[in-house]
Amino acid sequence: MPYHRRMSSFPHDSVRAIHWIGDGLRLLDQRRLPDETRFLSATSVDDVTGAIRDMTVRGAPAIGIAAAYGVVLAARARIAADERTWKQAIEEDLRGLEGARPTAINLRWAIGRMRGAIGRAEGIDAWRDLLAEARAIHEEDIAANRRMGELGAALLATPSNVLTHCNAGSLATGGYGTALGVIRCGYGRGAVRQVYADETRPWLQGSRLTAWELLQDRIPVRLIADGAASYAMQQGKVDWVIVGADRVAANGDVANKIGTYSLALSARHHGVGFMVVAPTSTIDLATARGDQIPIESRAPDEILALCSRRIAAGGADAWNPVFDVTPADLIDVLVTERGVARRPTPADVAALAAP
Amino acid sequence: MPYHRRMSSFPHDSVRAIHWIGDGLRLLDQRRLPDETRFLSATSVDDVTGAIRDMTVRGAPAIGIAAAYGVVLAARARIAADERTWKQAIEEDLRGLEGARPTAINLRWAIGRMRGAIGRAEGIDAWRDLLAEARAIHEEDIAANRRMGELGAALLATPSNVLTHCNAGSLATGGYGTALGVIRCGYGRGAVRQVYADETRPWLQGSRLTAWELLQDRIPVRLIADGAASYAMQQGKVDWVIVGADRVAANGDVANKIGTYSLALSARHHGVGFMVVAPTSTIDLATARGDQIPIESRAPDEILALCSRRIAAGGADAWNPVFDVTPADLIDVLVTERGVARRPTPADVAALAAP
Repeated sequence: MPYHRRMSSFPHDSVRAIHWIGDGLRLLDQRRLPDETRFLSATSVDDVTGAIRDMTVRGAPAIGIAAAYGVVLAARARIAADERTWKQAIEEDLRGLEGARPTAINLRWAIGRMRGAIGRAEGIDAWRDLLAEARAIHEEDIAANRRMGELGAALLATPSNVLTHCNAGSLATGGYGTALGVIRCGYGRGAVRQVYADETRPWLQGSRLTAWELLQDRIPVRLIADGAASYAMQQGKVDWVIVGADRVAANGDVANKIGTYSLALSARHHGVGFMVVAPTSTIDLATARGDQIPIESRAPDEILALCSRRIAAGGADAWNPVFDVTPADLIDVLVTERGVARRPTPADVAALAAP
Repeated sequence: MPYHRRMSSFPHDSVRAIHWIGDGLRLLDQRRLPDETRFLSATSVDDVTGAIRDMTVRGAPAIGIAAAYGVVLAARARIAADERTWKQAIEEDLRGLEGARPTAINLRWAIGRMRGAIGRAEGIDAWRDLLAEARAIHEEDIAANRRMGELGAALLATPSNVLTHCNAGSLATGGYGTALGVIRCGYGRGAVRQVYADETRPWLQGSRLTAWELLQDRIPVRLIADGAASYAMQQGKVDWVIVGADRVAANGDVANKIGTYSLALSARHHGVGFMVVAPTSTIDLATARGDQIPIESRAPDEILALCSRRIAAGGADAWNPVFDVTPADLIDVLVTERGVARRPTPADVAALAAP
């Protein structure tokens, strides 16, 4: 299967990382990009849980979508095993999926929505109803991204130089992307002149994923070390910092890839706009403030080793939190598919999240 | 030769990267640490110029010291070639050394001091007088570092958690270090509880050099991604950020490794102390403001490739400035061997630099 297919008439939009094909899920293995564009087949819910945990699939909306398809795989197997008890039995699978990664709320959001579909599903082919729901989640995410692309790009003066962090693109979503959706739309309109991308240590999502994805779509990109972002702002090279989110708390605080908070501080200091682009599935009204969001720490080896080779002296330790929290008051604009909030307040967040 | 020798009775101080042995210079190859502790022999001024350019030796004071020894090698060769004209002929060598790297002012400072010694030197053994001057520069640097260690450590409450960036240690100086000198002294006194070190992309001086150097001296160190520094401060894990400098302008602005400026912004935002530790040889009164300091950019491949393997998608570009400038008003304390200035003013800098 070719790894990029023109999924739409939108320009600069050729990458899709999640496909339901025939009766199974195929996931672009993001650990291997850009060296290899290899798809892995996930034929069981355990495959999907493992793929989320090991970052074969990553990015908050993409994790939610993959999990929704994982519920379909779980239901098919549980129904085949025992048609009468599957709705109880599947709970174990859902808890496994929910525990795969802690920070992105889209995971729990998608599973919650699939639980609703499970409640309504009937008969031996109930999993097909769940597949329809998972497909809807997937398609709605792409539509939300396109809408956010329009809303966010409309805020950019022409020409703007933008800086993004991590990968909040097609690879991180159902397709088109959140932050990269705004950049895609802005670039297509001629509003975006130069895209800077932080390399985003330790996992190098910027170098490995964002650069690959933008170049697939012929959007030029210039990588910088994470530590160079403040200097770029000081030198007047950046008009907007545009990032995605893994969770938006009720007060507007945003959890996103480690390093985001530093960008927000620098942006405010330099009068550079700071834009968070996230679908409403990323909003978690049950979490009042950002300091209550669980922040995942991953293995120290992501810092201590490179290319499977230890780089730090033996005996050195590392602390590897992979998300941080940006306070709402540093966010100039929160863009969702339902609208835009400037300097978002709790009331703004609640209004955007209301169904 | 063993790569670490107890050079003194100071605790936690075993590493030396620059040695004049017999009649030549030996440099610890910092490109190969921590995998190999290999010394290279430099037997000509061109060897030294090359070693500075390719970062076999790096760190502002260390570059100056290596260059001073390079002048000795140049003089010996020029005197052997023509005893009458060597003082004119050596100018070409000095200009080559001066041009090896642009940002660290210690390079020009050391060559300026060696020019003075050249002016005074006489006879076929004139190079021996120059060697005495180079040795003096080297020993004075170590003494300055010890003094700065005392002065800086005296500012730390007990116990303090400190964060450093890049490598401003024994490897970056004649020995003992600037920022790491303060940490060495503070750790020896029990004032420093935890040392965090930024990994410091792209060259990974933190992971490769600072971790190695501190562990050689049994000082525990915890590495973090550069992007995690602001989060560490937000979480209350850091009391002081302690860094070195490549050049201090007359107004107190400081050029240092890329990423330093971002740390200074975050430190001020969080009420964390920001300490710059630099010998007076790093002060450049001829440069009025930081924005006049030449900032070196190095090859994009330092960002685009890792372990000699390209990591970014083909076609991606990179911008790789390797220093940035921190404005004086973000500096809480400037520590030199002649004393300490809090929130340094131009008058403070001038007073510290006065001979």
